[in-house]
Amino acid sequence: MDERNAAHRMLEDDIAAKVLGIRLQHAAGGEATLTMTVTAEMVNGHYLAHGGYLFAFADTAFAAACNSHGPVTVASGAEVSFITPAHVGDELTAVATERVRYGRNGIYDVTVYRNGHPDDVVLEFRGRSRTIER
Amino acid sequence: MDERNAAHRMLEDDIAAKVLGIRLQHAAGGEATLTMTVTAEMVNGHYLAHGGYLFAFADTAFAAACNSHGPVTVASGAEVSFITPAHVGDELTAVATERVRYGRNGIYDVTVYRNGHPDDVVLEFRGRSRTIER
Amino acid sequence: MDERNAAHRMLEDDIAAKVLGIRLQHAAGGEATLTMTVTAEMVNGHYLAHGGYLFAFADTAFAAACNSHGPVTVASGAEVSFITPAHVGDELTAVATERVRYGRNGIYDVTVYRNGHPDDVVLEFRGRSRTIER
Amino acid sequence: MDERNAAHRMLEDDIAAKVLGIRLQHAAGGEATLTMTVTAEMVNGHYLAHGGYLFAFADTAFAAACNSHGPVTVASGAEVSFITPAHVGDELTAVATERVRYGRNGIYDVTVYRNGHPDDVVLEFRGRSRTIER
Repeated sequence: MDERNAAHRMLEDDIAAKVLGIRLQHAAGGEATLTMTVTAEMVNGHYLAHGGYLFAFADTAFAAACNSHGPVTVASGAEVSFITPAHVGDELTAVATERVRYGRNGIYDVTVYRNGHPDDVVLEFRGRSRTIER
Repeated sequence: MDERNAAHRMLEDDIAAKVLGIRLQHAAGGEATLTMTVTAEMVNGHYLAHGGYLFAFADTAFAAACNSHGPVTVASGAEVSFITPAHVGDELTAVATERVRYGRNGIYDVTVYRNGHPDDVVLEFRGRSRTIER
Repeated sequence: MDERNAAHRMLEDDIAAKVLGIRLQHAAGGEATLTMTVTAEMVNGHYLAHGGYLFAFADTAFAAACNSHGPVTVASGAEVSFITPAHVGDELTAVATERVRYGRNGIYDVTVYRNGHPDDVVLEFRGRSRTIER
Repeated sequence: MDERNAAHRMLEDDIAAKVLGIRLQHAAGGEATLTMTVTAEMVNGHYLAHGGYLFAFADTAFAAACNSHGPVTVASGAEVSFITPAHVGDELTAVATERVRYGRNGIYDVTVYRNGHPDDVVLEFRGRSRTIER
């Protein structure tokens, strides 16, 4: 268990993340690991997990990673590629790593994978962060 | 009112979109307009609308636009820039337009704006689509 | 002919753009139109115009558009989709338009098309700008 | 020295890469390392290395990595973030790594850094590839 930091406090206040059942496993030093189960409420008109919810999951991992340093940091943008569809009941893991920080900016990569298999990738996400409080 | 097309049928089956209260105003010819109200369940740990929900809204508009042609079309990826934060009670509009189609691929731009003011932009989204059924 | 502005002066100093034979047709009010001919020096190992040169062309149009307002503005990043290959002898046009400006940031879209046909698209580019001088 | 593979043969035919003085150091197994010196011909109107040439360098590393497997593979798109400017005389290294392959698609990350210091990052690039020959 990590010591509690700004990322933990932020996730506690994140109602949207709670509604999605997102669980913070680890956040420290610009890295974070979170888990989420795909529920029947998350499917789109093609009966697959809605890309928006998958994005929200990755985005929450990104937020946990970039806020683990302390200062309030927000997303300025992101790029996502959907690799394979996710289905109801899939247990997803999001692993966020810091790629680079420069000035008040940062770039973080998030991989979302399925059922504990890091090679069974659901999406790849690259987020751009900006620290708004020094 | 548009005649009903594949986009309308898809949205009717989109449980995730229903949960978010997303309303389809128009979808035809590669374009779509949708609306959504930011609720108290959509805020993140900074008390702003979670980027993931805003993305989900834009992504739904993108899906409505690219499926309005008929064949089943899915998102292969997207790029999003967050312009201004959204708050509880904001009435959001997403307008999706088709930029180009080539082979089974397409590029669609979505602008999300606030309270009926097209210049009060919340996010800019560019989605990449792929048709999986001819 | 536009009146000369910061974009024109910038392009005159842009040695790289001169080497590529890029010609500025118009730049004002956040918009720009440029032309370039694909030469035998621009092909890659697949005998098609190198994506890097096509990107450089789009990026130059983006720079002309965002600097047409006056203050020095640089690219913080970009997203590009390659639509169709370009060949030696193709006459390319890049049209850059401003999508949104917020604070010191901006988003610009550039379409590169071939031989005067706006529907014969070579690439779609979205650039993120940042003004570094007020 | 690697054994020669498809990436080496491709780079030999890449006139654009030769014009830029790009040197292939290594390419195998989905990874590649290349070097390039910033010359006086590569500067833009702000007297910094033109983003287009930096992109071309990263894009060439991406092409070497994704073609090192053998089948002809092209770029379908890319996302780039410019981290710090590069100046005439800078010795740049591009390191491309494979993130994921799925079907005929792949995602590759390229970091360009300066003067042998991997922490002195010039740009971060994420490319999307598509294999066109099985």
